[in-house]
This record gives sequence, structure tokens and C-alpha cells, in this order.
Amino acid sequence: MEIIKKYENYRKIIKSYGFALSTISFDAQTIAPKKSAKYRAEMISTLSGEAFKISTSDEYIKIVNELFGIKDQLEENLKREIEKVYKDINREKNIPKEEYIAFRKTLSLANTKWEEAKQKSDYNIFKDHFKELIKYIKKFNEYTNPDENVYDVKLDDFEEGYTINKYDEFFEYLKENLVPFVLEVLSKPEVDDNFITSKLYDISKQREFINYLLDVFNFDLDRGLLRESVHPFTSGINCNDVRLTVRYLEDFLPSSIFAGIHELGHALYEQQVSEELINTNLARGASPGMHESQSRFYENIIGKSYDFWQVHYKKLQSIFSNELTNVSLEDFYKGINKVKASLIRVEADELTYPLHILIRYEMEKLICNTNISVDELPKRWNDLYEKYLGIRPNNDSEGILQDIHWSWGMFGYFPTYALGSAIASQIYYKSDINLEQLIKNNEIYKVNDYLKEHLHKYGSTKSPRELIKIATGEDFSPEYYVRYLKDKYSKIYNISEEKE
Amino acid sequence: MEIIKKYENYRKIIKSYGFALSTISFDAQTIAPKKSAKYRAEMISTLSGEAFKISTSDEYIKIVNELFGIKDQLEENLKREIEKVYKDINREKNIPKEEYIAFRKTLSLANTKWEEAKQKSDYNIFKDHFKELIKYIKKFNEYTNPDENVYDVKLDDFEEGYTINKYDEFFEYLKENLVPFVLEVLSKPEVDDNFITSKLYDISKQREFINYLLDVFNFDLDRGLLRESVHPFTSGINCNDVRLTVRYLEDFLPSSIFAGIHELGHALYEQQVSEELINTNLARGASPGMHESQSRFYENIIGKSYDFWQVHYKKLQSIFSNELTNVSLEDFYKGINKVKASLIRVEADELTYPLHILIRYEMEKLICNTNISVDELPKRWNDLYEKYLGIRPNNDSEGILQDIHWSWGMFGYFPTYALGSAIASQIYYKSDINLEQLIKNNEIYKVNDYLKEHLHKYGSTKSPRELIKIATGEDFSPEYYVRYLKDKYSKIYNISEEKE
Repeated sequence: MEIIKKYENYRKIIKSYGFALSTISFDAQTIAPKKSAKYRAEMISTLSGEAFKISTSDEYIKIVNELFGIKDQLEENLKREIEKVYKDINREKNIPKEEYIAFRKTLSLANTKWEEAKQKSDYNIFKDHFKELIKYIKKFNEYTNPDENVYDVKLDDFEEGYTINKYDEFFEYLKENLVPFVLEVLSKPEVDDNFITSKLYDISKQREFINYLLDVFNFDLDRGLLRESVHPFTSGINCNDVRLTVRYLEDFLPSSIFAGIHELGHALYEQQVSEELINTNLARGASPGMHESQSRFYENIIGKSYDFWQVHYKKLQSIFSNELTNVSLEDFYKGINKVKASLIRVEADELTYPLHILIRYEMEKLICNTNISVDELPKRWNDLYEKYLGIRPNNDSEGILQDIHWSWGMFGYFPTYALGSAIASQIYYKSDINLEQLIKNNEIYKVNDYLKEHLHKYGSTKSPRELIKIATGEDFSPEYYVRYLKDKYSKIYNISEEKE
Repeated sequence: MEIIKKYENYRKIIKSYGFALSTISFDAQTIAPKKSAKYRAEMISTLSGEAFKISTSDEYIKIVNELFGIKDQLEENLKREIEKVYKDINREKNIPKEEYIAFRKTLSLANTKWEEAKQKSDYNIFKDHFKELIKYIKKFNEYTNPDENVYDVKLDDFEEGYTINKYDEFFEYLKENLVPFVLEVLSKPEVDDNFITSKLYDISKQREFINYLLDVFNFDLDRGLLRESVHPFTSGINCNDVRLTVRYLEDFLPSSIFAGIHELGHALYEQQVSEELINTNLARGASPGMHESQSRFYENIIGKSYDFWQVHYKKLQSIFSNELTNVSLEDFYKGINKVKASLIRVEADELTYPLHILIRYEMEKLICNTNISVDELPKRWNDLYEKYLGIRPNNDSEGILQDIHWSWGMFGYFPTYALGSAIASQIYYKSDINLEQLIKNNEIYKVNDYLKEHLHKYGSTKSPRELIKIATGEDFSPEYYVRYLKDKYSKIYNISEEKE
């Protein structure tokens, strides 16, 4: 059909801007010289403006609307793509232009103010801008989705099919079944991780080990690459060009290893999307939650397992012969899995991590669905930390100002982090492979193959909820997550499981 | 004025495409994964198409034409910029569209065929496409510049103000004054460069020396970077983002050092263009010839001088203590300056290099200004090599098919290589600095400062011919080049200068 050709032509043009911006961003985060930033920012803004012009042009919108009107006549993947694109282009359609421009300004200012506030650990600097930002978000929802709950809309925007209903069920289950267990673990004697906290690990040797891991995980260097950046990330342009970065810290060895395996999980997912989708808008992982399920599967379920280190610890020991000679495999395993109540989400261990997310989920519900004053928020945050983790922030910087997300107007993203971990556990219990055995045989490529076949290859052709059904044979259920965590940490902390 | 604002807006958009394509190209040439090439090629072609649409849009052309009409009322730099842009957008204006499209196809095919022909060393594969390509170039000149000689137009396109007249004068001077001297040098006993040709130099040690050189030449790493690529190049986005690459060959140490210093010359030029020009179309070096004058100045006049190695040879020796212990400074200096008649331009030494260019210049005049048959060209090429360098190619690959330029339709570019070297020599003799002393004091930053003030800072605000006058106080003259070469090589080869 003529209209499909027209659509494909637009798609290619819009994708070419995405490609350019993605390449520029990777360059900026990995190698670009310090003083090149200002000019680049202008160029990025100009290119984004050009992309915006095209993706909001009357002709393009008309084409998408027309295709949406006949979507049931379209081939399955194209239908799915048009539904997604239609949702995207209509997301902001009823918002008056002037208000939208004012909102963008508020957003930009809020972000700047958040940075200043965070640095000075003073919520007052951010507060009024935050209030303004929340006001806009609620107001815009009345324009765009007058019949829907604002937080429901936000949650579904990031993770299609997951709204308050589903997340309430998930987090209630965690509260009931996980929180008591975590508190019990926290009451146990601390694990000794001196080999991590009081030793320096040469960075060029860390590089050697990360290159070894690329091989262990069978990352295809003909279709991807590894570089370094301040914040590790994965940039998936398409299955033939997947770039991950790590950060090497001399005084914290686990950073390169586990953030590295985490990014490898994202990267393997992107590399294993079916190449047939390469020119479509379905060529990437399905959603933040599904992506996180894969990064956490590789990082935690494989990378932090005893089986894994049974095979690979000797390599690490041979590289760091001085530092690790007297650290046994058992001590290493316990050290990298040490549980400790901490105030900072990104530093949290695997077990306490979901409680950080639970806290943010409850805060977001409060903010979006009640008229709570912004003045109240720091105390509420601190109370929740005390309630779930037994510790209380001393200042705004480690409390309410901790994460950048809200200053970008991003509400509803945090829950996908915990959801991803839970999905990873479900896949772990419901897959048809003998994961332990494959890890012990150093055959992770077979795990990759399995995940490709049952999840990765689909890209975004299916919704997250459909994908879980394909990958595990059933709907999402939080019980596997709790089962996995209790099983693992009961052993590490000598807790008899029957007691639970 | 409103029209200037409109122009500046277009300029920013067009520059943003250039920025994107430049970043993508640098990425492709340095790190991009092998299998990402195909998709990237499509994205580049799409982005180039978008850029083309804008830079050939009726509105943009109208704006430029309008500004050109009132150019004498414009501020000096803007006037210069509009003149350049006007020339660019009108370059192809009278060519019928269908013919232009057919030409682009011919060009693309000719390039593919050249690659095949070169590989198989068979000119017959390329010949007919070459003929077609030449036909188009001549025909198009009748559309675009009916009153001008086609080669004059081509020459001026690359090096504004330099046409056959000027180049004839230059190359005639070289023929008369340099060719006999070169033949005399070639008749002398060969210099011993065994330390180069029969030893391996560890690549990580070469890297160490190149990093040392970045420091010696005061390259600003806050505004630039060094990477590796198969073909060394410099990518100047603007003065705050200048990227050079080198190639490390274990079995040919001079490659990284001298191609490295060559690219440093280009890079320093770009870094020292006035920052005020950053948003304009005048923010880059003035022309290929002026650029080459700087790369050759740094590479040859500084980098291959005795004074330079008097200071830095001990560093190189300390890095390659095994390989260079028994090589004296004198032997090293002579080795890196060894003169040898060779068939391959890119491998030529400093002295014979201009004769390679002379040959290409004579060939281009033949091709553009006569009706010589393409069948004749290989023999003519070989005859010229015999005439000027006393050696004769054995096959098409090292003869007529040697360079890629003509298969891209690029006639008139080669002469800028020799012109650049000649300009470098003129600057050497006419500058107000004591270059030898500054090199000996390891104060190359003072050379940089001088060149910034007298050349680099101007970017493209002046024409190449104006720049020579600013930098040397006089018009271009070829005599300095011959004087410099005779002076240098007489000493190396013990030729008494009076004899000349």
C-alpha cells in the first residue's frame, strides 16, 4: 500500500535522527573533550528540534492516524507498531501549546534547581519548582486522559499494562512476605567484606577481568563494543550495534564486575532482538521492566550466584593474586552478597533493593493521587525509610533529593526496577533450562540462546505482559521473587526456612 | 536585520547535520563494530538527504541570494561567508537534474570499478567509467562556467585564487630548479635505514611516545583527543573539538611518529582558529593548501629537523632502548630523511614528494584540457615517472590506478599537496621567529602562538592568497621551497651547494 511506503519513509527519517543523537550521546559520555560540551548541547538541541518538526508534522500524523484507522488490516507487527506510535504522537495532543512551553521551562528550571539543592542538601531550593511541576503533571492529565488516574497513566506509559492495581498487589506482597525476612537478615551478624572495602584493585587488571567476562557471557564484539564512562549504561542502536560501558573504581572492585554484568544483560537482550525488525520501531527491548529483568537476571541470578564464582573465582584470584589469595570462595561469595540497610538506592544490595523501590512507589502514589503539600514530603520519605529499613536519613540530599528522576518529571519509572527483578526470578523458576548446570559448565551461551528464543528475539512486537506469558507460561506473579530471595539469603545468613 | 537572523537560523540547522555526520564518521572510523556498517550507511544517506533538502531549499537559496545582493552592506566576515556560501549553492545550479542524477550514478559506479580494477591491477575494468566521468565533468563545466577553462574551475574550487596560470609557474619552477637536484641526490650512495626497515617496535611503546609528542606540541586535550584508525586523519568540528588519529605499525615506526605529527599540524591549526567564529561557516582552516602547509610545517620542517631530534631523540631511545641503542642521533636523522625514488606517492620522502604531484598535475591538465583518449593515460603516467623519477611502474595498480581521487571525480586536489609544502617553506623563511632556537628550547608552544597570531586565528575569514600575505608579508613564491629542500638535503647528502 502507498500509505505504508509513506509511513516507512518517515520512519526511516525519524530513525536517522535517533541514530545521530544516539551516536552523539555515546561519544559525549565516553570520549568527547571537556570543552566541546557547550557547542554540542546547541547542536543536539537543533537536531532534536528538526526531529520534533518531522515527527509532529501534519503529514506524518495524518499518515499514522490513517494507518491506525485500518490497523486490523495490517500485518501483525506493523499493527503493533502503529498502535505504539499512535499512542506516542497522541500523548500530548490536547495540551494547549503555551502551557506546554511553560511546562518545558518549569521542567528545565526544576532540574537545575534540583542539582543545586542536592549539592547543598537543601530541599527548600527545589520545593517550589517541584510543586509547580506536580501541578502541571496533574493538570495535563486532565487534558490528555480526563477519565484516567494520573499515576495509572504514568505507570502504563513506562510499563504497558501495569497500573496501580497490579503494582499494589506486587508491593503488598513484598511488604507482607519480604519485609519481615529482610529485618531478620539485618539482625544477623554482619558479613565480613574487608577484602572489598579496604583494598585497592588495579584498574588495568580490572579491565582484564571485564574482557574475560565479555567472553564468558559470549558478547559478540562484531556487533557491539565496551567502553568506559562515569555512569555505566548500554546504548542499543540495533542488534548489530550495541554498546555498553563500565566504570572502574580502584577502591571498589564490585562496581566494574556487577555493573558490568548488569549492562551485559541489557546488551545481550539488545543483541538478540531479531534482525528482521531492524528497520522498524520494534527493534529494541520491550519496556524498562523487561529490560531490567534481563540485566538483573544476568547480574544477580547468574553473576552473584555461588555456581558462577565456583567456575570463575580462580580467574579473578589469578589476576588479583595479592589481594585475593587469603579470601576463600565462600568468603568472596558472602562478601559480594552482603546485606546492609543503607540510605542510598544505587548502593543497595539485592535483598534490600526492592524496599527502596517500595518507598518510592508509596511516595509517588502520595504525590500523584493526594493533595499532600510538598513541605510534607521529606518527613514522609524519612518515615518510610525508618519503617521499612530501620534507618533514617540525616539530610535532604540522602533523603527526598536522592534521585534525579522526579526533577525530570518522571513519575512511574521507579517501580519498573523492582518489577524487573521479580520477573527475573519468575523466569529463573519457570524456564526449561538447568541454569545451575549451565553456569557450572561455563555454557552461558546456552542461557543466551534460551532467552533469545523465549524472550529477546521478540523485541517490542509483544507487550510486557504477553512476553512474560511467552517466557514463563503464566502471568506475572510476585511470589517467585520472594521465594528466590528467601532461598538465597537464608543460606547465606543461616536462617532456617521453615521458620518463615 | 531580519534576513540575517533567518540566515543564521538556517546556518545552525545545516551545521547541526554536519556535526552529526562528522561525529558518526569519526565513530565509524575509530570504534564502531564491524557489522554495524550497513545500517549506518543507510542512516548516513538519510541524514545527508535531509541536510541536502534544507541546503537546497528555495527559502534558503533565496535568503543567500538576497544577502549576496547586499553583501557590501554586511559586516566583513559575514560578507566573506555569504560569498563562499553563494559560490557553493550556485556551483551546480545550471546542470539539468536528470543529468546530475546520471552523473552521481556514474560516479558511484566508477568508484566501485576503480576499487576492483586497483585490486586486480587492471585498468581496463575502470577505463570506460573513467571516460564517462571525464565526459560529464567537461560537459557540466559548459553549463556552470561556459566561459572558463574546466581545470581552472576545478583548481579554484579547492584552492581559491590558484588556477593553471599560478600552478604552471609553480611547477615549471620545480622542474627547472628541483628536478636536477633530486636526480643528483638519487645518484648518491643510499642512506642506511636498517633500524627502520628491519626492526619491530612494540606498539604500546609507540603509544607512549605519541603521548609524549602531544605534550611536546602542546596539543590541548581539553579541546581535542587522539584515537587510532586505519588511515590517520584529523576531524575538526570546531576549535573546541579537534580529533586526530594515528596508526601504529609494528614494522614501520615512522608511520605513527610522522603521520602523527602531520595530523597534529592539522589539529593545531583547527584548535587555534578564533573561537569567535565558532557558529559561522568560517570556523575551519582556510583551504586544503593552507591546511597542508601547516601539517607539513609541523611534520617536515619541525618534525624531521635535526634540531628537533637533538632534543627528543633521547626520549625515543629511552623508550626503545634495545632497538635504538646503537643508532646514533646522526644515523637516526639521516634514516628518517632517506631519499629514494619510489612509485608510490604516499610512501615518498619529503624531497621526491613534489615530483609525484608534478606528475599528477601534468596528467590532470592532459585529461581536462585535451581530448586525449583514456587508453593513452597509463603509458603517459609511466613515461612521466620515468622522466622525473627515473623509474617505471610495472603495472596499473602502482601506475595510473594508484590514487582514489580521480574515481571520485576529484581533479585539481593533488596540486594543493605540493602547494602546501611550498607555503610551509615560505613561512619558515619569512616568519619573525627563531624557529631553530625555539625547537632547541623545546618551546614549540611559542611556534604555535606565532602561527595562531599570523595565520590560524583567521580561520576562513581570508582567502588563501590573502593569508600568505598576512603570514609572510608577500605573495606566494615557489623559490623558498626549493631553497629549503636544497639546503636540507645538500647537507644530508654532502652536496656542495655552490655547484647548483
